[in-house]
Amino acid sequence: MPRPSVREQLVEAAVECFHERGFNGTGIQDIARTAGVPKGSVYNHFDSKEALAGEVMDRYAASRKLELLHDEALAPVPRLRAHFEYLAADLERFSYARGCMFGNFGTELANQSDTVRTQVDARLDAWTSAVTRVLEEARTVGALKSPVAAEQLGQFLVNAWEGAVLRAKVTRDRAPLDNFFDVFDSLVA
Amino acid sequence: MPRPSVREQLVEAAVECFHERGFNGTGIQDIARTAGVPKGSVYNHFDSKEALAGEVMDRYAASRKLELLHDEALAPVPRLRAHFEYLAADLERFSYARGCMFGNFGTELANQSDTVRTQVDARLDAWTSAVTRVLEEARTVGALKSPVAAEQLGQFLVNAWEGAVLRAKVTRDRAPLDNFFDVFDSLVA
Repeated sequence: MPRPSVREQLVEAAVECFHERGFNGTGIQDIARTAGVPKGSVYNHFDSKEALAGEVMDRYAASRKLELLHDEALAPVPRLRAHFEYLAADLERFSYARGCMFGNFGTELANQSDTVRTQVDARLDAWTSAVTRVLEEARTVGALKSPVAAEQLGQFLVNAWEGAVLRAKVTRDRAPLDNFFDVFDSLVA
Repeated sequence: MPRPSVREQLVEAAVECFHERGFNGTGIQDIARTAGVPKGSVYNHFDSKEALAGEVMDRYAASRKLELLHDEALAPVPRLRAHFEYLAADLERFSYARGCMFGNFGTELANQSDTVRTQVDARLDAWTSAVTRVLEEARTVGALKSPVAAEQLGQFLVNAWEGAVLRAKVTRDRAPLDNFFDVFDSLVA
């Protein structure tokens, strides 16, 4: 049985490499080197780079802390805003260079791997549903300004966020995220 | 002197390949094969794959027809909507699989090539300025609903469009673009 800690090291190394160089720009050798393990041991744990990408997305999804969107201690609109602020702070830690793993994989791999495309689709749908539920709560308590239906607005905000994150990856500063929050405040709060 | 038609074939082939497989997923050999020319002749025309990417972006930028944003035959808001509809029709021709070349290169290459990152940044800024000017015109004639400043809204719409295009690349349908237009109508028109 492979030691769990090597598997863990490999997933962490893959997160680094995929963020830094993308999927096609990263070789198994790069991941092994970053993890400090021999190249051969990667295949003791993962059948393919694609399988490793699946595990990286699981890890990334957990780090989004979507469960906080259900935390009724905060009113719906401030809770939703805090969610995006949490994501923004995470991007800031890496000087806005990392972008969103879902957006990165979706952009790079949608035409290359139907497995990855389907996984990204499901992740973005789950996130959209969680955002939509908060907007529905806001509507119920009369706290949602926009006349747009919660479901439509949920989808729009998730996509607009992905676009802002992409732009921040290019500008290397927080301006596109600040812009998102300004329009968010006008559209939602 | 290389024949201009070979150069042309190479740029067209690179557009295909970069859209299909991304920058890192595309080899010079793939571009040569798609263009139907020997691999060596690529380097008669371009110093590097990165130089070819610059030319591909020029070509792509011209195909966005930003000049139509200055066409005063149409009122500002319908003109802006028609601009995004034009981009949507272009995406539809390729079953939403291609995405936006600026977004694709920005996502994949921002960490890898400062040259490409800077080019994408300039392209997105020029596009944002053109969109902003139309919104300013709309504001002048009292046709802009949103209380958000034209400049902020211009930046937001461009980024939200990029996010919708990314999402459509993953869902492989027009739904994310329809969603963009629905919110556009509520936000702008």
